[in-house]
Amino acid sequence: MSDRMWILSKDDVDYIALGAGVLGTGGGGNPYLGKLMVQRAIDQGARIAIMQPDAVADDDLLISVSNMGAPTVSNEKLPSGDESSIAFRALERFLGERATAVVCGEIGGSNSMTPLRVAVDLGLPVVDADPMGRAFPELQMDTFNIGGVATTPAALADEKGNVVILAQTSTALWTERLGRVVTVEMGGSAGLAMPVLRGSQLKAAGIWGSYSLAHRIGAAVRKAQREKVRVELALAPLGGMLLFRGKIVDLERKTTGGFARGLVELQGFAADAGSRLRVAIQNENLVAWRDDRVVATVPDLICILDDNSREPVGTELLRYGMRVCVLGFAADSKLTTPAGLVVVGPRAFGYDLEYRPLAGARI
Amino acid sequence: MSDRMWILSKDDVDYIALGAGVLGTGGGGNPYLGKLMVQRAIDQGARIAIMQPDAVADDDLLISVSNMGAPTVSNEKLPSGDESSIAFRALERFLGERATAVVCGEIGGSNSMTPLRVAVDLGLPVVDADPMGRAFPELQMDTFNIGGVATTPAALADEKGNVVILAQTSTALWTERLGRVVTVEMGGSAGLAMPVLRGSQLKAAGIWGSYSLAHRIGAAVRKAQREKVRVELALAPLGGMLLFRGKIVDLERKTTGGFARGLVELQGFAADAGSRLRVAIQNENLVAWRDDRVVATVPDLICILDDNSREPVGTELLRYGMRVCVLGFAADSKLTTPAGLVVVGPRAFGYDLEYRPLAGARI
Repeated sequence: MSDRMWILSKDDVDYIALGAGVLGTGGGGNPYLGKLMVQRAIDQGARIAIMQPDAVADDDLLISVSNMGAPTVSNEKLPSGDESSIAFRALERFLGERATAVVCGEIGGSNSMTPLRVAVDLGLPVVDADPMGRAFPELQMDTFNIGGVATTPAALADEKGNVVILAQTSTALWTERLGRVVTVEMGGSAGLAMPVLRGSQLKAAGIWGSYSLAHRIGAAVRKAQREKVRVELALAPLGGMLLFRGKIVDLERKTTGGFARGLVELQGFAADAGSRLRVAIQNENLVAWRDDRVVATVPDLICILDDNSREPVGTELLRYGMRVCVLGFAADSKLTTPAGLVVVGPRAFGYDLEYRPLAGARI
Repeated sequence: MSDRMWILSKDDVDYIALGAGVLGTGGGGNPYLGKLMVQRAIDQGARIAIMQPDAVADDDLLISVSNMGAPTVSNEKLPSGDESSIAFRALERFLGERATAVVCGEIGGSNSMTPLRVAVDLGLPVVDADPMGRAFPELQMDTFNIGGVATTPAALADEKGNVVILAQTSTALWTERLGRVVTVEMGGSAGLAMPVLRGSQLKAAGIWGSYSLAHRIGAAVRKAQREKVRVELALAPLGGMLLFRGKIVDLERKTTGGFARGLVELQGFAADAGSRLRVAIQNENLVAWRDDRVVATVPDLICILDDNSREPVGTELLRYGMRVCVLGFAADSKLTTPAGLVVVGPRAFGYDLEYRPLAGARI
C-alpha cells in the first residue's frame, strides 16, 4: 500500500469485502458476489487503484456510486454488473464533464464492491472515502447530504437499458422517494450514481479512509480465524468494543414499508451469563438494549458476528440457536453532530430515544 | 386565421377547448381550467401563435408537451401551470439545444390547453398538429411512437420543484411504466415533455390540423347551442356520425389498475327507441355495442354529448337518467394501420375484438 495510490490485490479485495461485511452492521447486502466479480477482473488484468482523499484536487469532479434497492433482491436478481457504470456515464453526459475518480456511496456491505466494479469498467481510480462509514437504508442518510452536498443530479440505471436522471428535487427526501419508486419499477434493484461533488466537497464532507478501515478490519478477522483468536480481541485495536456474547433465543422478522424489520434476542453466556440483549433491526442493527437498558444506538455500529466462524452475519442470516458476538464501533463524528443526528439518529428511524454514545462496552 | 400563422383570440381558445372536449371521447380531462388560464394570459397581452406543420423546417427541434396523470387528480390537485414548461426547458438543457416550437401531445381534453400555456411561458409558437387526434390513456399510444419516433428523452416536472428525466428506456412501454410511477409519486399529476422530434418527423408521423379541427368542432357546437340545432347535424360536415340517442339507464364505474373503468348503458329514444347501446370505458369510451352488435371500437372516436346542453360529457360526469347523443368520428388513418392497431386497437386495451371501422352510423 503506497502513500498515495494503492493497487488492489485479490487478497486486498477479500479483506475489504470481509471488513465491509462487518461495517454493514447487519445490512448493506452481502459483498460476496461483488467480491467474486472484482477478483475475476483482477485475474483478467484489471488494475484497481485506491487514492487518498488528499490526492484529489479541489476542483476535480467526482461521482459517487452504489446499488439502490433491497439487498435480498440483488442476491436473487443478479445484476449484469455494469448498471452503476452506465449511471455514472449518464451523469457525466448530463453534466457535460468527465469525472476524475469514483467515490464509494456506502462502505458497509455489498456497496463496498460497486465502486471497484465501476473503476474496472471506466478505468478510473477510487477514492479512499465514503459518506457513511457503515451502511444505511436510505439515500439521503449520509455525510454528503449532512454536509450540504446536493443529492441531485442523480442517475439510476437497470440491466434492461433504462436510464433515469433525477435532474432536480426540492429536498433530499424527494430524491430518496423518487429514486425509490424508480428502483422498485426497475425490478427492485438499480445502479445509482449520486451525488456529484468536487474534490473540496469530498474532503470536507466525506469520511476519510473507508477502504483502508474495511481492509484492516477484514485482515484482522482473517488473522483471528487462522489463529483461533477471539474476534473482539482482534478488532479491539480498530475500535471494536464487545457489547455481548450470547445465543439467539428469539427472532422476529418481517418486511414492511420497504424495510426488513425485526428484533433479535440473545441469552448471554461467559461473562454475559444471566443477561439478555435485544437488538432492533431496520435493514441494519439499530438499537441494542441490555436487560432493558440502552447500550448502543444508531448511528453507532452494532455488528453481529458468528462466534464460531468469526464472520459477520447479515440480519437475513440470523437464526435461532446461533452463537454470536456483538461488537460496537463508534460512528464517525460527522454522523453524531446535531445536524447529523437529525438525518441518521434514532429518531430518523422512528425510535423515541436520544442518541447516546457507546458506553459500558468492554473488551 | 392566416395561411401560416394564426394568433389565438379568447373565442378561438373557447372553441378549441370545447372541440377538444369532444375529441377527448370521454377522457383526457376537462379543458375548462386550462382554458381560463390561457384566456387570462391573452387578457394580459400574451400572443399565442399556431403555425401550420408545413411551415416547420425539417431540421427544427420540436418538443411535445402534455400533462401526465389521472384527470380526476388534476381537477383537485391544481397544477401551478408551469410544470410542462419546466419539463420542456429541462429537456432543452439535457439536449443542449433550443426548440423552435411546441407540439401538442394530445389534442383531446385538457392537454389541448397545455401547449398553449407552455407557449405563453416560453414565447414559442405551437404547431397545428398532435399525435392522437383524440385522447388516449398511455404515453406510448400515439402516432409518434407508431411512426418510430423515440419516446426518450422525456422529462417530468411537478409543482414542488422536482424534475426527472427518462434519459433512455429499452422500449416505449418502459417509458410509460417509469413515467407512470414517477407521476404517481409526484402526487398523481405531472408536467410531461416528450417526445423530442425534428420537423421532418413531425410532418411524417404527426396528425396535421388538430387545433384547426378542434376549433371547427367547437365553433360548430357553439353555433348549434345558440341556434338550438341538433348537435349531430352541426357536426356531420366535420365527420361526426350519429351512433345513438338515448337515456342512461345503467352505469358502473370503478378505478382499477390506474384506469377509470366502467360501462354505461343507454335506452334509445326517437329513432333508436327499442334499442340499447352499451359503451365500455377505460378512461376513454372504447367500444360501443348496439344490442350486442359492435358498432364502434377504439381508435375510432366515441363521443357522448349531453342532448340538452350539447356539451361533451366526460366519463366522470355521466349520471343515471342523463339524455345523451353518441357520435362517432373516424380515427386518423395513421392509427388504423396494422402497426397502429397493435398500439391503439381494441386488443391493446384487453378486448378480444378486431378493430372495425365505424359502420351503420347515420346522421
